[in-house]
Amino acid sequence: MKFTRMAVLFMLMLALLPLAFAGAKAKSDGLSATRTAIESANNQFTAAFERGDGKALAGMYTADAIAFPPDHEMIRGNEAIGQFWQATHASGVKHAVLTTVAVDRSGDLAVEVGTAALTIQPEGQAQTTAAVKYVVVWQRQKDGTWKLHRDIWNSLPAKP
Amino acid sequence: MKFTRMAVLFMLMLALLPLAFAGAKAKSDGLSATRTAIESANNQFTAAFERGDGKALAGMYTADAIAFPPDHEMIRGNEAIGQFWQATHASGVKHAVLTTVAVDRSGDLAVEVGTAALTIQPEGQAQTTAAVKYVVVWQRQKDGTWKLHRDIWNSLPAKP
Repeated sequence: MKFTRMAVLFMLMLALLPLAFAGAKAKSDGLSATRTAIESANNQFTAAFERGDGKALAGMYTADAIAFPPDHEMIRGNEAIGQFWQATHASGVKHAVLTTVAVDRSGDLAVEVGTAALTIQPEGQAQTTAAVKYVVVWQRQKDGTWKLHRDIWNSLPAKP
Repeated sequence: MKFTRMAVLFMLMLALLPLAFAGAKAKSDGLSATRTAIESANNQFTAAFERGDGKALAGMYTADAIAFPPDHEMIRGNEAIGQFWQATHASGVKHAVLTTVAVDRSGDLAVEVGTAALTIQPEGQAQTTAAVKYVVVWQRQKDGTWKLHRDIWNSLPAKP
């Protein structure tokens, strides 16, 4: 009886061992997969931004997302954020190139650090560029997709 | 033999059950405790800032932290960030009041949204104030303490 119990426990431990390794592997695989998912979402984001598609952009944020435009109050909720981007596009920010610099992840939260190069051309004016750095906190949804939950940026210094 | 194995497995499941409930409880307790820990760390931060104590501030960031001051390149590493704050204090930013607005957490990452009211008085000049909003990503350390890992802010609009 004593031997049997020990044997069962031992077999159980053996059976669980691969799970522990699988967990460690999932962790590193997860980070690389998360980064790929975020970069792919960023491509969707810039495409929607170039179309001035506020509705599509709103759909990429969580319902209780907050955006933090410089010199502006916090914008709360995905609908309001979509409208903000649509207005930003209409004001002359035509094009954005996002570059992901770093991604951290723990469970359902991922934190992206990046830079964005903006092409700005208000109607009838010369084209200019601007560069910003940003932190986006992404939240994993029940269906496994990632949505923007916190979105904050500010200017990089102008290039000489 | 069959009965014994079943009995051992059943006892093992019974033994693990409280762990599952403890996990669920820790999750909700965790958010409120995390917010308290962050607010307490913020008090430490503002006290160190008022002393112009760059070394103490550096110790509050992770080794691979990044700070994102407006109109500035990213500042990488806790030593450089501590020096930045010391220089900011020396330039006349005397005092900061931090207000935590929201905290999200998943595992070892917590995301704080907040606002800061700054009192600025460069030598020989009149005192002014400024208000910023920020997102700080906190990373839990092995000893259970939380350190600033990403720290980004920008201006709120000037009050009329």
